[in-house]
Amino acid sequence: MQDDLPKGFRAGAAAANFKKAGRDDLGIIVSDTTAVLAGMFTQNLFKAAPVLVCQEILASRGTARAVLANSGQANACTGDEGLANCRATQAMVAGLTGLEADEILPLSTGVVGAHLKMDLWLDAVPKLVSNIGTRDAEGFTRAFMTTDAFPKFSMREVTLAGGTARLTVMAKGAGMICPNMATMLCVALTDAKVARDPWQAMFGRAVEKTFNRVSVDGDTSTNDTILGLANGASGVAAESAADLALLEEALTDILGTVSHMLVMDGEGASKVIHITVTGAASDDDARTVARSVGHSQLVKTAIYGGDANWGRIVTAVGYSGAKFDPSRVSMKLCGIERFRLGCPVNEDKEDALAELLKAKDVQVEIDLGGGSGFYNFQASDLGHEYVTLNSDYRS
Amino acid sequence: MQDDLPKGFRAGAAAANFKKAGRDDLGIIVSDTTAVLAGMFTQNLFKAAPVLVCQEILASRGTARAVLANSGQANACTGDEGLANCRATQAMVAGLTGLEADEILPLSTGVVGAHLKMDLWLDAVPKLVSNIGTRDAEGFTRAFMTTDAFPKFSMREVTLAGGTARLTVMAKGAGMICPNMATMLCVALTDAKVARDPWQAMFGRAVEKTFNRVSVDGDTSTNDTILGLANGASGVAAESAADLALLEEALTDILGTVSHMLVMDGEGASKVIHITVTGAASDDDARTVARSVGHSQLVKTAIYGGDANWGRIVTAVGYSGAKFDPSRVSMKLCGIERFRLGCPVNEDKEDALAELLKAKDVQVEIDLGGGSGFYNFQASDLGHEYVTLNSDYRS
Repeated sequence: MQDDLPKGFRAGAAAANFKKAGRDDLGIIVSDTTAVLAGMFTQNLFKAAPVLVCQEILASRGTARAVLANSGQANACTGDEGLANCRATQAMVAGLTGLEADEILPLSTGVVGAHLKMDLWLDAVPKLVSNIGTRDAEGFTRAFMTTDAFPKFSMREVTLAGGTARLTVMAKGAGMICPNMATMLCVALTDAKVARDPWQAMFGRAVEKTFNRVSVDGDTSTNDTILGLANGASGVAAESAADLALLEEALTDILGTVSHMLVMDGEGASKVIHITVTGAASDDDARTVARSVGHSQLVKTAIYGGDANWGRIVTAVGYSGAKFDPSRVSMKLCGIERFRLGCPVNEDKEDALAELLKAKDVQVEIDLGGGSGFYNFQASDLGHEYVTLNSDYRS
Repeated sequence: MQDDLPKGFRAGAAAANFKKAGRDDLGIIVSDTTAVLAGMFTQNLFKAAPVLVCQEILASRGTARAVLANSGQANACTGDEGLANCRATQAMVAGLTGLEADEILPLSTGVVGAHLKMDLWLDAVPKLVSNIGTRDAEGFTRAFMTTDAFPKFSMREVTLAGGTARLTVMAKGAGMICPNMATMLCVALTDAKVARDPWQAMFGRAVEKTFNRVSVDGDTSTNDTILGLANGASGVAAESAADLALLEEALTDILGTVSHMLVMDGEGASKVIHITVTGAASDDDARTVARSVGHSQLVKTAIYGGDANWGRIVTAVGYSGAKFDPSRVSMKLCGIERFRLGCPVNEDKEDALAELLKAKDVQVEIDLGGGSGFYNFQASDLGHEYVTLNSDYRS
């Protein structure tokens, strides 16, 4: 079952009935040895209890042995009681596994404001612990899915000077996805041996280029957490600059793959809008423009409907707040230039564009004509299915 | 027909077939005498040609005799050709009315990036001019409607020391409504006599308290314009501080009425979310929080579905970017406190809340617990009808 996990990691799951009966909603990953930890967390001021606990562990130990994830209740906006409940779940697992409580990283997703159901945890944790080693990457991923339409995970091998190491990434996403951070929950595992500082540094850069550049609805959740555990079980070390660069490249690549899955599965999304901004005064300005376009309800509904309504894109560029000269702006939709230096062009290409807009991936290229600032961004479209899912999420 | 317009104003309209045949899509208002002008305009860097021309007139003359409005084409992002076309429409009307071209304020709404259809203008302007005096406030309003479900206009009388003056406000809204500015197009007329500086000043304050505090989809259009024309035809002057205050109060009141209509008719909206933020460190912080909640797709879909998912509201408060202490935040939904000092309360009131959420107007009260900063804001919900309208707007 564990062929798709890096060496020295085992996964388990159990059905605790936190929200719906009969499906796995509690998952665990255990590393046979102590793993070096990297982490990035939500910018939301209301940080869920498990986010606070993970941040503590990252700051105090910088290592971990296990990840414990539940769906159903997010344990966010739950005050001191929520924090106590979170620590109690660590203690339950520690008691049955012999791990220390603060080697166990908690992750929660589900309804914000709902407390963990501690009676159900008490029933489920023994099952969970006895199941360690019975699940693969997909099995763990399914345990923390909420409205996700499909499980999101990926594996990769990377060949370093000393041999081949593996990377496995498991994520859950769907709603409330926005920089920073794009996923609600993500766990990246590797059996490469890497020191704490370079691991956290490459992790931060890789997340910035991937998860922080995708958006479903612009809502940044209280629980967004991405954890990286490197346990060294492969015996393959990433120490030289060349090997660290190779590991970072593989990590960025696999996080990019999984973050694209998140947008593709944005709640009810049918398309991914790929936005590239060039010619900005700064990368910050380019990001401001890309996010403005990617968050525009009018752009997202037009793309959903396959409507080549490029004026909405240019409008979102205009109100983004970035500074630029409107008469120097050009824009391509699906590779066809429709706006050049502030004026419409190729007005006879509407039929061709309508055809191109049927694709699942839609390219939007914006050139502000003013500098070397650059940013790219992926956003989901906005359709009826998003409204259906989100107007009745809790039932 | 003109009973609902202030003295000295006449309205006309014509069917020019700019987009759909057989309905008025070109409107005009003429003041018998020169009117003092106030105006506020979109913050979008791509300002439509008519916005640029209105800004010129406001800056150079500060007075006007007429407003000329079309739907169908927004004449935005249309470059120099768009500006030339806009000036040509002024010239056509000037030629047939004897007004000067730069006394005529152009307003356009419709598809961004589409040029005015000058051949249809040539046909329609003589009809339009011959119809001056045949339409009332509703008739003019209907001529610049696009996806609006109903015409938005209101009338009011205000009694000053010297007698009674009238105010009439006509607006079109629906999509692309966001501060600043909330309406796509709005014309406010009064027959009070008021000097230019106090008129512009009270106009700016009234718009800030009304149109700038409503949102449908967060998209700020290229064309948003609000014009105020005061022609003094009633003979009633607003000169004393007391009279100016009365006029401002009436203006704020009527703009509030019409801006509420805009949210109520947000494309596909079924409810208006009234957001009040108190206890912020500053009014700016309160505004940041109110807008974050009002623009959250997850909040808007939950309210649409009548789901008391208050965690989404608190989440949007948390990622707004405003600074506050999360443990001091409280929140009421429909008057029921669900979050107090960072913790959930009244968990047994879910059924009562579900009942209250069936109302058309939904109150959200957020207390950040940290200062005297205050802001209020109105936002529409987000439902299937919004997606339907906006995924196929141009067809």
